[in-house]
Amino acid sequence: MRELNQMTITDATKESFSNRTNERFAFLIDKLIEHLHDYAREVNLTHAEWMTALNFLYDCGKISTPERHEFILLSDVLGLSALVDMINTQGGGTPGSNLGPFYLDNAPKFALGKHLADGREGVVILVNGQVRNTMGQPIKGAVIDTWQADGEGMYPIQDPRQDKWDLRGIFQTDDQGRYYYTTVLPKSYTVPYDGPVGKLLTAADRHAWRTKHLHFILRAPGMRAITTEVFFKGDEYLDSDAVFGVRKSLIAEAKRVPKDANLEFDLEHRPDARVDFDFVLSPARA
Amino acid sequence: MRELNQMTITDATKESFSNRTNERFAFLIDKLIEHLHDYAREVNLTHAEWMTALNFLYDCGKISTPERHEFILLSDVLGLSALVDMINTQGGGTPGSNLGPFYLDNAPKFALGKHLADGREGVVILVNGQVRNTMGQPIKGAVIDTWQADGEGMYPIQDPRQDKWDLRGIFQTDDQGRYYYTTVLPKSYTVPYDGPVGKLLTAADRHAWRTKHLHFILRAPGMRAITTEVFFKGDEYLDSDAVFGVRKSLIAEAKRVPKDANLEFDLEHRPDARVDFDFVLSPARA
Repeated sequence: MRELNQMTITDATKESFSNRTNERFAFLIDKLIEHLHDYAREVNLTHAEWMTALNFLYDCGKISTPERHEFILLSDVLGLSALVDMINTQGGGTPGSNLGPFYLDNAPKFALGKHLADGREGVVILVNGQVRNTMGQPIKGAVIDTWQADGEGMYPIQDPRQDKWDLRGIFQTDDQGRYYYTTVLPKSYTVPYDGPVGKLLTAADRHAWRTKHLHFILRAPGMRAITTEVFFKGDEYLDSDAVFGVRKSLIAEAKRVPKDANLEFDLEHRPDARVDFDFVLSPARA
Repeated sequence: MRELNQMTITDATKESFSNRTNERFAFLIDKLIEHLHDYAREVNLTHAEWMTALNFLYDCGKISTPERHEFILLSDVLGLSALVDMINTQGGGTPGSNLGPFYLDNAPKFALGKHLADGREGVVILVNGQVRNTMGQPIKGAVIDTWQADGEGMYPIQDPRQDKWDLRGIFQTDDQGRYYYTTVLPKSYTVPYDGPVGKLLTAADRHAWRTKHLHFILRAPGMRAITTEVFFKGDEYLDSDAVFGVRKSLIAEAKRVPKDANLEFDLEHRPDARVDFDFVLSPARA
């Protein structure tokens, strides 16, 4: 028989995954085994550390529910989610950013100009811009799916007394590729830190704050869909967002709207400030 | 603010774990982030693959219980557990091997010569040998904690109708450093494959069989404790053990004992075969 040692075990493990019919699966597994083993060798992993890591994953599993995916949060704080967003951002288009845990499929559809935050406290902002392709041409009928935290940093879905569909909406761009609606300025909030990932952040002296943001998914026929976020200039957590979601090109500014200013949009609610942000979609891969 | 991209995000993530007072923790986290990010970049991880991996971990958490740690099993089939055993095996001593999920603390203590398998079907084996230090000197009073599957490949702890303390025992070596007891020859068994790890093995066309083995933990004052296994020459799964536990130096042979052979030990039960295996313990680190 073959003798296994610290070096040969890596090839032996790779070979044990003998199904080579799915090349991509084989490649993903091979590289996973290589990196996992390289890591253990490089740090000289002790039994106690190995057990701590496995029990950490066990605890992540324990606290997870269909509404709370602690492994996504772990991926977020380890910068992996952001890296996957970056890897899959197509050149020329608006960069992708975290989906986060609060997305709901099938949000209500609204006409442009809708106010998404009826009766809510906060600074009312006009969110508007144009959706274009990478040639600079406006995209008519692009679908904009948005969701956000309220002026207190809470998503309605987190509060059983609120309607989970609040502060969400799906819009379509007009003939000039424009979108516009009003809502309240969201507030920063912390990612859940009452679980194992929170303990990890605490041990590492890391805060759990997300810089304030609006979530968006954009879709248009023939174009690559993007999941992204828009951030706000001047926020204190821009440079230390707990999930590494920020890119420079995703930062917008909330500019005060003078009381007597003429606005070029037909709006349900007069805004206190306006946020201008254009999206660029790249073509879908053949 | 600093712009994050596919390369700079790795340093940014490392820096976010700002607690540098525990150097070992900082090193383990830094290397984890490096390997995790290198992996994602190297394989160009897609969102769908990333989500599949996170949901796989979620499912491992769901099926785990205090009696079933699916993450240990995952570590086992990925060769990580064996690698950690190898990394932590001290030169000159008997190699370590998998602890497995069936160990119980505080097994009953027996005098040498005890039969551990009263009333059980199977080939009765005499298990015996000497415990020595790396200078070749016998260690008197070394503690040998053993547990094993029965002749059907089942651990009593897996069967609610059986006594979980069956097929376990703690012995101490005699003045010559010798240990000896009888039991039944264990049978091969499969690791649990009704969960996510089983699905992974199935997808990879891998069997789930463990080659048959006896488990041991050895302890002696001033010596490094070892957790290891003894395997059996000729077993069909020696070269494809599902958890990569086998080392050449851990393979023993069950040799038939002639009916009229004189045995040098005082035994409760006459054996059909004998397994001779010596253990070597290295000094504990200062």
